Amino acid sequence: MSVLGLVGCGLLGGSFALAAKQQDCFSTVLGRDHSDSVEKTAKRVEVIDDVWSPGVSVDAVCVAVPTYAIASVVESLASEIGADIPIFDVGSVKASVLSELKEVPSNFIPCHPIAGSHTSGPEAAQADLFQGSVCVISPTESTNRELLDLVGKWWRVVGSRVITMSAHSHDEVVALTSHLPHLVSVAVVELLMSQDRSTEDLLGSGFRDFSRIAGGDAEMWRSIFVDNLDNIRVGFQDLASRIEHMLSLAESDPDELEQKLKRIATFRDSINGE
Amino acid sequence: MSVLGLVGCGLLGGSFALAAKQQDCFSTVLGRDHSDSVEKTAKRVEVIDDVWSPGVSVDAVCVAVPTYAIASVVESLASEIGADIPIFDVGSVKASVLSELKEVPSNFIPCHPIAGSHTSGPEAAQADLFQGSVCVISPTESTNRELLDLVGKWWRVVGSRVITMSAHSHDEVVALTSHLPHLVSVAVVELLMSQDRSTEDLLGSGFRDFSRIAGGDAEMWRSIFVDNLDNIRVGFQDLASRIEHMLSLAESDPDELEQKLKRIATFRDSINGE
Repeated sequence: MSVLGLVGCGLLGGSFALAAKQQDCFSTVLGRDHSDSVEKTAKRVEVIDDVWSPGVSVDAVCVAVPTYAIASVVESLASEIGADIPIFDVGSVKASVLSELKEVPSNFIPCHPIAGSHTSGPEAAQADLFQGSVCVISPTESTNRELLDLVGKWWRVVGSRVITMSAHSHDEVVALTSHLPHLVSVAVVELLMSQDRSTEDLLGSGFRDFSRIAGGDAEMWRSIFVDNLDNIRVGFQDLASRIEHMLSLAESDPDELEQKLKRIATFRDSINGE
Repeated sequence: MSVLGLVGCGLLGGSFALAAKQQDCFSTVLGRDHSDSVEKTAKRVEVIDDVWSPGVSVDAVCVAVPTYAIASVVESLASEIGADIPIFDVGSVKASVLSELKEVPSNFIPCHPIAGSHTSGPEAAQADLFQGSVCVISPTESTNRELLDLVGKWWRVVGSRVITMSAHSHDEVVALTSHLPHLVSVAVVELLMSQDRSTEDLLGSGFRDFSRIAGGDAEMWRSIFVDNLDNIRVGFQDLASRIEHMLSLAESDPDELEQKLKRIATFRDSINGE
């Protein structure tokens, strides 16, 4: 009988637990959450089988807490369980977590499944969340290769394609593919909140798509913005100059602007999935 | 027998034609497009019954061309057809169109249905595109009230809620609800185009939603950016300072950032429709 310990019973951790159990990677899931009510809900909706009490042994641990809390959770786990038990996280930022660890335990496997939803909490967990997704794994020099392979296998089994990338490269890329779009989307929604309520009448389906991510979990995103701030700043400077350039083209060279918009639309449509 | 003349047989005009005919507002649709191949396609997919030849009389005209071309099309139509025949457009910008007209014909009813898609062309037209949408009508002092009511009735019949708003207010609001989100989305996609192709592996469903609008018709959007440039510029200045403020909060006051993100997420989720 193989037991998964889950720390943080929200959307991502809960979805991994559901999927991994469904695929027989584990027979039992024991969970912890800093919120008692989340623990209770997770048990009620059968994301976990029971609460994970201190001292109860497990065969692997999934750490699914906001990025700011990952390092301290991993350090405390490393002193609680054996070095042969893999500990892996699901955080959207990697370098800051690794640098916060006084020593990176060899059984810690830094993971980032690129999956999620604008919903959150254990009730939003779904066993198919990772189907067709990518999971980035960022091993360090000290990472135990056997445990790395084991964790990679689990991600594949729940539906992810596994990509290996350094923590530093990962953070630079997700600043552009995920964190910057999120920041821009929430800022546009904030701008609309500051307007007359009648403005809402004029929001179409395009805006709903554009702003869907802005409904995401505030605690998680606060932590991401803090932990990947430098990369996001660099991305926004680049973005702002591209926007200024397009606005100046609208004034000086609309034909060139149209060509640019055409190339962008073609590229967007080539992205896998509607 | 009531005939609709359609100038511009793309997604929006084509969808109005399909819907209005289905609802018996018109028995026949005659269409024109500056592209012969679009005219042929529109006829083949039955968005129009036939090509609208010069001199053939109609009972109403829907002008569904990019915003830069609306004023010249309306002027030429006004000299071709009687002042008792309503001419209405579907353009996303209103003030610049009205200011380009030497004299605003009393039978010109400026309309903007807030509906669309990232697809375009007559093949993308759908009779239910306007179901549950809002259509803004921006009459001027000289607008014929009888024709205004008639056009408003048609929009209601095809599924829109009609809102009356001055051209100036309309343009300010849509700069924020539609044009700025579009600009930001295309600029983020352009930023990703400039990266290594492997970046695409890390694009999740959130990014796909955020960037869907960037696949929109380049000619239409070029024209919108040119025609509503001042309002979009003002909106971007506001947006940029909100983004800078959030980034500085990430550094100095993450708790305040989290509260802000929470308020934004709540507001976003209150917007009608997922």
